[in-house]
Amino acid sequence: MKSFLSLKSVDEVLSLLENFAPLAEESVPLDECAGRYLARDFAAPEDLPGFDRSTVDGYAVRARDVFGAQEGSPALLECVGDCPMGRAPDIRLQEGQTARILTGGMLPEGADSVVMVEYSRPAGDNLVELVRSQAPGDHVLEHDEDAAAGKVLLPAGRRLRPQEIGLLAALGQVRVPVTARPRVAILSTGDEVVPFEEKPLPGQVRDVNSHSLAALCRSAGAEVRMAGLMRDDVEGLRKTVREMLDFADVVLLSGGSSAGMRDHTVDIFLSMPESELLVHGAAISPGKPFILARSGRICLMGLPGHVSSALVCARAFLLPLLCRLQGGRPGIASGVPAVLSRSVASAQGRRDFIRVRLSRTEQGWTADPVTAPSGLISGLVEADALVVCPENSEGLYAGQEVFAELLI
Amino acid sequence: MKSFLSLKSVDEVLSLLENFAPLAEESVPLDECAGRYLARDFAAPEDLPGFDRSTVDGYAVRARDVFGAQEGSPALLECVGDCPMGRAPDIRLQEGQTARILTGGMLPEGADSVVMVEYSRPAGDNLVELVRSQAPGDHVLEHDEDAAAGKVLLPAGRRLRPQEIGLLAALGQVRVPVTARPRVAILSTGDEVVPFEEKPLPGQVRDVNSHSLAALCRSAGAEVRMAGLMRDDVEGLRKTVREMLDFADVVLLSGGSSAGMRDHTVDIFLSMPESELLVHGAAISPGKPFILARSGRICLMGLPGHVSSALVCARAFLLPLLCRLQGGRPGIASGVPAVLSRSVASAQGRRDFIRVRLSRTEQGWTADPVTAPSGLISGLVEADALVVCPENSEGLYAGQEVFAELLI
Repeated sequence: MKSFLSLKSVDEVLSLLENFAPLAEESVPLDECAGRYLARDFAAPEDLPGFDRSTVDGYAVRARDVFGAQEGSPALLECVGDCPMGRAPDIRLQEGQTARILTGGMLPEGADSVVMVEYSRPAGDNLVELVRSQAPGDHVLEHDEDAAAGKVLLPAGRRLRPQEIGLLAALGQVRVPVTARPRVAILSTGDEVVPFEEKPLPGQVRDVNSHSLAALCRSAGAEVRMAGLMRDDVEGLRKTVREMLDFADVVLLSGGSSAGMRDHTVDIFLSMPESELLVHGAAISPGKPFILARSGRICLMGLPGHVSSALVCARAFLLPLLCRLQGGRPGIASGVPAVLSRSVASAQGRRDFIRVRLSRTEQGWTADPVTAPSGLISGLVEADALVVCPENSEGLYAGQEVFAELLI
Repeated sequence: MKSFLSLKSVDEVLSLLENFAPLAEESVPLDECAGRYLARDFAAPEDLPGFDRSTVDGYAVRARDVFGAQEGSPALLECVGDCPMGRAPDIRLQEGQTARILTGGMLPEGADSVVMVEYSRPAGDNLVELVRSQAPGDHVLEHDEDAAAGKVLLPAGRRLRPQEIGLLAALGQVRVPVTARPRVAILSTGDEVVPFEEKPLPGQVRDVNSHSLAALCRSAGAEVRMAGLMRDDVEGLRKTVREMLDFADVVLLSGGSSAGMRDHTVDIFLSMPESELLVHGAAISPGKPFILARSGRICLMGLPGHVSSALVCARAFLLPLLCRLQGGRPGIASGVPAVLSRSVASAQGRRDFIRVRLSRTEQGWTADPVTAPSGLISGLVEADALVVCPENSEGLYAGQEVFAELLI
């Protein structure tokens, strides 16, 4: 059991997430795999498309038979039939012969290219004039051009987008080995917090963090169990966290915004089996009171009580963790380039995430910092994006070009 | 019944999507609303937080009692008790009095600001020295500062992100009026196409489009019904499309890549009740054979057979349609600025979507165009993003700065 009392930098926290290993693999029906992460390299079990295939409507030919053909000097070929769709054609082209073929059709034996129908004209009986010279392979998808048997097409850890689902379908993968969804147990704490279905009395507020954090976790592929609400009662909390270990890969505690309760959170985490404190405070704003610990392979995370802080902090640390637990690599931060509308001060040595509204001008995007304090949820609702002010900076200035990472 | 035979521009197609009205609203439990679109304006039913609330741990005061206080000249106040968490304090501050309060606690009557605990020191008995001058409202979240009763906080059409879920929880919205999910019926056609569970014979390929399009639709909030596979048989197709109208808000037909089958698709769409052809060919690459029609309020869409073309075309037209059917407005295209690694030719008057791989250099992102033909699915699997080459351009050149929209 080690304890760290100084603030960890964002990069240090991210590298400490490597304490947590990817979860086990499971086999899932293909149509339920979108957004999941591939658990193993996927190699083509066979050639794709598996046969030489026309990419146009036209005439299958031997390229040498149309060599030099052009409008004024057509090649005259004998059309010996139609290539059927969905079957191997019962045709073998001899010198001077051609066969009609549709897009997607299988080339007949002997053919090596296709002349588009636009470059053909009938010439009586079974004859056809082709007015385009063709190289072997033109307008043909070769039998292993999309994928050759044995080639690794998708690496382990690849997030499955619609196109990956398509590729797996093309190769007949009815079930796919993906990494299990992380199970996240979420607990809100605070003597003033009541369930969101209740009408709060004076001095009480409804539970916000459980619901917003659950939505964020689900968007990242996690299964969520709402562990409910706890008063700031150390022994009760300890018991509840202990029970959550049986279900969860990640235990999320939010709340405890007072300094005393934050210390209790650390004590509670450290009283779990095989526990280790990894982070007690991060050089991030908002989100400084962030706590990261582990109990064996299970991640224990303490988020700030203020909802805006909790959400920004969760985006910075929890989303990368959920990606890692699913065997993924961090994705590309996606957003828009923008010009900052006014200056924002920061402190050196701390990474600030500045909430901005985006508006479109003729010159491009303008990013307008949201001023609401982090205790207000309306401030984060107004924000379209986050702008990072890095550790080596004392702030960002009006007119500066920044990258605004979209909050989607 | 009108018919258009010329290619429509991408913007014309997008404006024709306005033929389709947002779907009905439904009431959904809050925790299932993430990613859905709000069906009506949401106004605060009550003040939020509902009471004046401390944002720090410290001492609740009347600002005038600590006016001018500083390290060398503290204000000496009588501490009359603790403000409890989660209840209205049974305290009314008189001149010269203070009360201990924690973050999130309700201010006692008479108090208008809070001095942070860091600026206090005990002075014997019930006395405390405060060494910080404070303005009224300092370290206080006022009762209606997050939201005043009656104020519209979220406009109809807003997509609900984790923060909107939080705001709705804060205001006790157990169920939320959102726009219904679009029901999309997907049909793949082609005599050469077999279900993906089957081993294709020579000349056959597995159905790819149904699965990749279904994944794309689901990611945009749609409910998908796989209507299966049809041979290129006009009467059978007509009957199936007719049946799909009973279930669907959108009928998606993909395949029919041969010119003849594309014409059949138009005929089939036009034989539906109250039909109108809106688009027969779009000035887009890939995706030129795109077909858009309607049967009453139902959208009929024909996508190209090549999977890469179908997916790019679906991103361009189907995703905006699904957003519109849910009452949403188009979101901000999200990606990264990048430098193109090599030149790409295009045709004036057409919008090209160029698939690119992204790689990171010290200068930023490089976008490397993927060369694979659109009949290959591997080309789209390799791509991280799309770069648009606009209608008024004959191409993009190596070294040009572009915006690469991520394929997520």
